[in-house]
Amino acid sequence: MTIALSLPNPEKLAWWVDHLGTLLPDHEVKPASEITAKDDVTYAVVWQPPSGLLAGYPNLKATISIGAGIDHIAADPGYPAAIPVVKTIGPDMTQRMCEYVALHVLNLHRQLPDLQTAQSAGDWRQIVTPTAPNRKVGVLGLGHLGKSAALTLHSLGFDVAGWSRSGKAPDGIEGFQAAKLDMFLARNDILVCLLPLTSETKGMLCTKTFAKMPTGASLINAARGAHLVEDDLIAALETGQISRATLDVFNTEPLPKGHPFWNHPKVLITPHIASLIDPVSGGEVIAANIRMLEAGETPDALTHVGRGY
Amino acid sequence: MTIALSLPNPEKLAWWVDHLGTLLPDHEVKPASEITAKDDVTYAVVWQPPSGLLAGYPNLKATISIGAGIDHIAADPGYPAAIPVVKTIGPDMTQRMCEYVALHVLNLHRQLPDLQTAQSAGDWRQIVTPTAPNRKVGVLGLGHLGKSAALTLHSLGFDVAGWSRSGKAPDGIEGFQAAKLDMFLARNDILVCLLPLTSETKGMLCTKTFAKMPTGASLINAARGAHLVEDDLIAALETGQISRATLDVFNTEPLPKGHPFWNHPKVLITPHIASLIDPVSGGEVIAANIRMLEAGETPDALTHVGRGY
Repeated sequence: MTIALSLPNPEKLAWWVDHLGTLLPDHEVKPASEITAKDDVTYAVVWQPPSGLLAGYPNLKATISIGAGIDHIAADPGYPAAIPVVKTIGPDMTQRMCEYVALHVLNLHRQLPDLQTAQSAGDWRQIVTPTAPNRKVGVLGLGHLGKSAALTLHSLGFDVAGWSRSGKAPDGIEGFQAAKLDMFLARNDILVCLLPLTSETKGMLCTKTFAKMPTGASLINAARGAHLVEDDLIAALETGQISRATLDVFNTEPLPKGHPFWNHPKVLITPHIASLIDPVSGGEVIAANIRMLEAGETPDALTHVGRGY
Repeated sequence: MTIALSLPNPEKLAWWVDHLGTLLPDHEVKPASEITAKDDVTYAVVWQPPSGLLAGYPNLKATISIGAGIDHIAADPGYPAAIPVVKTIGPDMTQRMCEYVALHVLNLHRQLPDLQTAQSAGDWRQIVTPTAPNRKVGVLGLGHLGKSAALTLHSLGFDVAGWSRSGKAPDGIEGFQAAKLDMFLARNDILVCLLPLTSETKGMLCTKTFAKMPTGASLINAARGAHLVEDDLIAALETGQISRATLDVFNTEPLPKGHPFWNHPKVLITPHIASLIDPVSGGEVIAANIRMLEAGETPDALTHVGRGY
């Protein structure tokens, strides 16, 4: 009964082997690269696993993603689709994402970037914005993080809607189902993307989408870089169709030197820090999920690559 | 039965005369400068009234401040202390102040200024901050605005305490009474000043206070400029005792050209916009309070200059 670990960063890998080994003393926890008896591997805990790695474990019962996304696993065309994937959503990740979304929606809502520009110019310019109940914010994606972020925005007084496949939304949030996308896009002054990355959502933040939003709306992307067509955003900022963008994720990370976003006056860059997993509490969540699987129970965060998220 | 209006800005004065005249059709609403029959004045609605003006109305029943502060009325040494003062706190003002405090506490908490500096340098620097439950925020002053702001911060997950004369605090907020100031100051990573301006609180944000805060704490002042000894803040930023300050109010407003705050890398200036009164709904609150006074009732927001707030 071996747990295989795979992470691209060798220091993080060593840390996780130690940490999970301590939390699961009745399991053998090893780096994937050191495992010769592949038959013994029943669980794999991974972030961006090499293509083909997971198909090489014939007795694999589940793959655990060290994070809320599973796109880095689904990206492997050889992944054995029948093997479930368990996402890791720690309480810290939800808290961090809610903080991030609250901060950046308020930042755009209260036009802080314009006040900072005024300060740089020594200009006492009083900008009076509407109150939050008069500001429409839309959250694309009502998964665990999207729902929590929408509720945080609602508690701050914003007029919040959410878009998801089913359109089901918590109390106080106006829900739009998949087919009502255009109506949803047309209503929001500020759009927050918290979608899972699937073949359907890839490249969704593009010229066609921006054109359906109110002129001068703002965008926050805290999901995955591949949701956004970066050149389309630059064009929309140029015309003013989008007035400002706050981006936490990018097609290539770290964002390459010389990328036009770095110096763009309308783009605020955060370096993929919206909701970093806290490894200590994240490890505890992973250990608890493995214990549930061992007991024949189904963790809430269990999914399949075919579903996409 | 005349209502006298006095505001320093002539355009705003004209607007308020019209607005209150419409809301209170059974009263004569006039600019103070046009009133000759001073005996007829029963209410005065003012912002920064000229010294001596209000003492000149022998039948004045109450003075209404167009705002949450009464320091601009108490500043007149000739003000007849027996005449009550009614503060104006519209629902919008509370909403706006809560937004402001949430935005700027989150901004300091998530170190957005450091991320912005990194962006300017093209530097992909991941800064991981503690989560809000591990961040101690203190609110100086638990009046209506202070209490609401403390609750908003609490709902975002922060570990919030408040300091007030009585130390009474709403559920979830740790209350410190006047005598426990030093303990209160020692606990907070981020200090938010929402105090009324009185002889006791004037100049309270000074070297002695900063020295009692944890090294590297941050400060937000959204109350009155005179709470802060501006030179003391510059010195504390120099030594690092205070790491950053976000200031909405200043000793002289607009902040004079060439003031050292304008270009200070550790000071974020907002031009007294934390909680501007919305004149439409503010006027409705004032009209309702005058109707209550006429009916012999006591508005919640009634106070006396001797109390100071």
